[in-house]
Amino acid sequence: MAEINLDRLFNPKTIAMIGASANPRKWGFIILLNILKGNYSGKVFPVNPKENSILGYPCYPKLSDIPEPVDLAIITTPATAVLPLMDECGEKGIPFAIVITSDFSETGAEGAALERRVVAGARKYGIRLVGPNSMGIFSSKTNLHAQMPPLMPLHGSISMFSQSGNLGVQMLGWGAEEGVGFEKFVSSGNEGDLSCADYLRYFGNDQSTEVILGYLEGVDPGMNLVPVAREISLKKPIIVYKGGRTAAGGHAAATHTGAMAGQYRIFECALRQAGVLEVMTSQALLDCGRAFANCPLPAGNRVGIITRGGGWGVITVDACEENNLKVPPLPDEIVKKLDSHLPKYWSRGNPVDLVATIAHDPYLDCLEILTEWDGIDAVIALGAGRRLPNYPYSKEVKGPQPLVDAIQMASLYIDDHAKKPDWMLEGIGKLIERTGKPIIVVSIGPEASHRSNLYEFHVVSYPTPERAVRVLWQMYRYRRFLDAHVGS
Amino acid sequence: MAEINLDRLFNPKTIAMIGASANPRKWGFIILLNILKGNYSGKVFPVNPKENSILGYPCYPKLSDIPEPVDLAIITTPATAVLPLMDECGEKGIPFAIVITSDFSETGAEGAALERRVVAGARKYGIRLVGPNSMGIFSSKTNLHAQMPPLMPLHGSISMFSQSGNLGVQMLGWGAEEGVGFEKFVSSGNEGDLSCADYLRYFGNDQSTEVILGYLEGVDPGMNLVPVAREISLKKPIIVYKGGRTAAGGHAAATHTGAMAGQYRIFECALRQAGVLEVMTSQALLDCGRAFANCPLPAGNRVGIITRGGGWGVITVDACEENNLKVPPLPDEIVKKLDSHLPKYWSRGNPVDLVATIAHDPYLDCLEILTEWDGIDAVIALGAGRRLPNYPYSKEVKGPQPLVDAIQMASLYIDDHAKKPDWMLEGIGKLIERTGKPIIVVSIGPEASHRSNLYEFHVVSYPTPERAVRVLWQMYRYRRFLDAHVGS
Repeated sequence: MAEINLDRLFNPKTIAMIGASANPRKWGFIILLNILKGNYSGKVFPVNPKENSILGYPCYPKLSDIPEPVDLAIITTPATAVLPLMDECGEKGIPFAIVITSDFSETGAEGAALERRVVAGARKYGIRLVGPNSMGIFSSKTNLHAQMPPLMPLHGSISMFSQSGNLGVQMLGWGAEEGVGFEKFVSSGNEGDLSCADYLRYFGNDQSTEVILGYLEGVDPGMNLVPVAREISLKKPIIVYKGGRTAAGGHAAATHTGAMAGQYRIFECALRQAGVLEVMTSQALLDCGRAFANCPLPAGNRVGIITRGGGWGVITVDACEENNLKVPPLPDEIVKKLDSHLPKYWSRGNPVDLVATIAHDPYLDCLEILTEWDGIDAVIALGAGRRLPNYPYSKEVKGPQPLVDAIQMASLYIDDHAKKPDWMLEGIGKLIERTGKPIIVVSIGPEASHRSNLYEFHVVSYPTPERAVRVLWQMYRYRRFLDAHVGS
Repeated sequence: MAEINLDRLFNPKTIAMIGASANPRKWGFIILLNILKGNYSGKVFPVNPKENSILGYPCYPKLSDIPEPVDLAIITTPATAVLPLMDECGEKGIPFAIVITSDFSETGAEGAALERRVVAGARKYGIRLVGPNSMGIFSSKTNLHAQMPPLMPLHGSISMFSQSGNLGVQMLGWGAEEGVGFEKFVSSGNEGDLSCADYLRYFGNDQSTEVILGYLEGVDPGMNLVPVAREISLKKPIIVYKGGRTAAGGHAAATHTGAMAGQYRIFECALRQAGVLEVMTSQALLDCGRAFANCPLPAGNRVGIITRGGGWGVITVDACEENNLKVPPLPDEIVKKLDSHLPKYWSRGNPVDLVATIAHDPYLDCLEILTEWDGIDAVIALGAGRRLPNYPYSKEVKGPQPLVDAIQMASLYIDDHAKKPDWMLEGIGKLIERTGKPIIVVSIGPEASHRSNLYEFHVVSYPTPERAVRVLWQMYRYRRFLDAHVGS
């Protein structure tokens, strides 16, 4: 299967918005607004015979009235209007169209027949279609937010295709809140024409894409997904979440995208052999994206753990051992080096337990010693990025003046502390660069993952050790795949 | 094993703070400050021969100088000073002491010997000890924040014991951010005297505790944990996270609390037979706490799913089927009822897919029909509590005035929308009450779980469907245990 160059789809210079609407409750309005407010770098031409202008932009009665060549048509008309539009697009020489419109193969035989006719109509002119039943695309290079929800993804090096629009766009939104940035995104809809295999191949050869995420429901054997994946995963990691793994889930998928879920076990096996990393939760998809985009791969499966609390260290060891990662004991020479930074009663083992030291300073010193030790390939740094959560130090406590003063002082200390870990993260970032080993930070609790400064320093953080371990395991799996298949 | 009444430990009228300090970097200062700023309802007496007053409170040179009876001693002195203090406590008639001090059995044979002598010293007077090496306790009734970190847990009906101080207190802090409230908490430390079995039994008979969480590392067969658990779990759910499941994890646990991790498989089996629910991640511990404290149990394992997006529905079905929950198809009569609320092309199945309806109204109507259907025992409501995330609708976009106006309008709409779901949650709360069925809300993304209004309406929400399904599965397991062992 040859690659289809999708540059003009993802980074068009000109867009025709067919079905543009002046009604704020119509997708033809909302998507246009999203494009315009997103500071899209190209030009948009609203097309609607009933309006003179929409959102202050002149409206064109027909495609042929647009005075310039058009790279991309976005279609939000009713389903019955889509077929005749293919001729208009073809005559205008438009190479790509995104069909947002639903009510095609996902609704049954009648819709499927209409979908086939639309695709045949497009093929006559060589037009390639996204969808129908797509929620749109995003592209960071041209600031193109041609999608249904009003979201503004962070920019990054992850590209994603999704056979579920909702799941996909919510990953973008969730990523924006957690500091995970995207390069390109496509909601592939019913895949009447372009399929996830086409997007996968394109992302695979796209210089700006370093990591590929995918949500899959149905895979048509004809689309050759596995050989494409095999080729691409030698170049960059592909992480996939598969919906419709069970019979009941597969049935739900069939009524949703019109796709057949296929035999999951066979599929799973084929993807694994192709080097694709499968995750089992939506959270893990984003978690993996974050780490693969920001962290070097570990050379092996030996993990060093550093912690501020014994219990967290224990469960991190358990999670490692249960996920094919090893936590080797410390040799004497490393113990000796750590001795000079830690109280005499420290545990002298891996995990390195800082035993409730309050200051930050020993943490970075110990982390450095641990990371530089050649007996490990990766580090999980528990509590490294920690800011003290904003525990409500009430200023309204009644009591003697020294108590009131102390509460105020403590509040200031906590506020101050909360601003501090930037230099820690900077230190960790440098340590990763120097050693080439991944250091995964764990900051317990929900606030940890929102922090933009983590993103800034390219330090990867998760709110629980179990999530960090699962990600590290996936990185190790990918490393093994590369070691086995790519010459050094 | 008889129950030990721990009322005066958790809800003391008077506390002696032995080792109270005027140095803000000492635990004897920090814990005292936490107690005082937490508005503790009783009296605290700082004890320190070198100070006249601390934080504005008069300081007593010795315990015997305190003019009132003392319920609880909190000890933060160096380890070597603890043994002689037992005599002083005994002579003062103090029934409970919390030994925060570390450097006991967790550091080796010498520390273990000292610990045994301290416990023997306490036994002479009938003093019961928490710790040593404890991070303290919390109790909502007396507003007692006798713990090392400066946290203010939410009040609720969950009580927790933890063999890891850090893991335990961070659950409290995390809970405060996610709206999960606690009744009592104890960091059991090395368990030189009182053990988790004692706390478990006490919580089991405590009227204010509805759900018990526990973090366990080492379980001494002599402490009779399993028979106690068996008795208590007939009355209220016990959810446990076990650290030291693997050989390496068990080794780390031994150097941490001085406990032996034991044979995990045997332990796991015994706990399961005793009706204890084991979770496999720290996140799941809090997730379960939230649901068991706020939701009725399902009568069976049949789940109805309602969703705003097909893909999320598909992966929810998969997660259900993979966790022994069933997603039965809808009978005609329910389809008919739903027909009148949904567009004609809706999928007519379970999951009920709202097919991108923008308004909230059909959601609650459809949820009601689904929940009231006698073919299901529980509902997972995807996107019910959703507020549109605060996508940055930049007001600085340059463009024609109608565009600028539309962006402002859209911002207002989103802001307004974000405030709205309260009435949805109120409706869901009432529906749960009326039907007696659990409805678990899923709001994708990290912001969802922080919302205090969820807490207010006793509606339980998670940021991913997979987490919701795991919780529902635990609730179903507990229901089966009760059905098998409790007469109706």
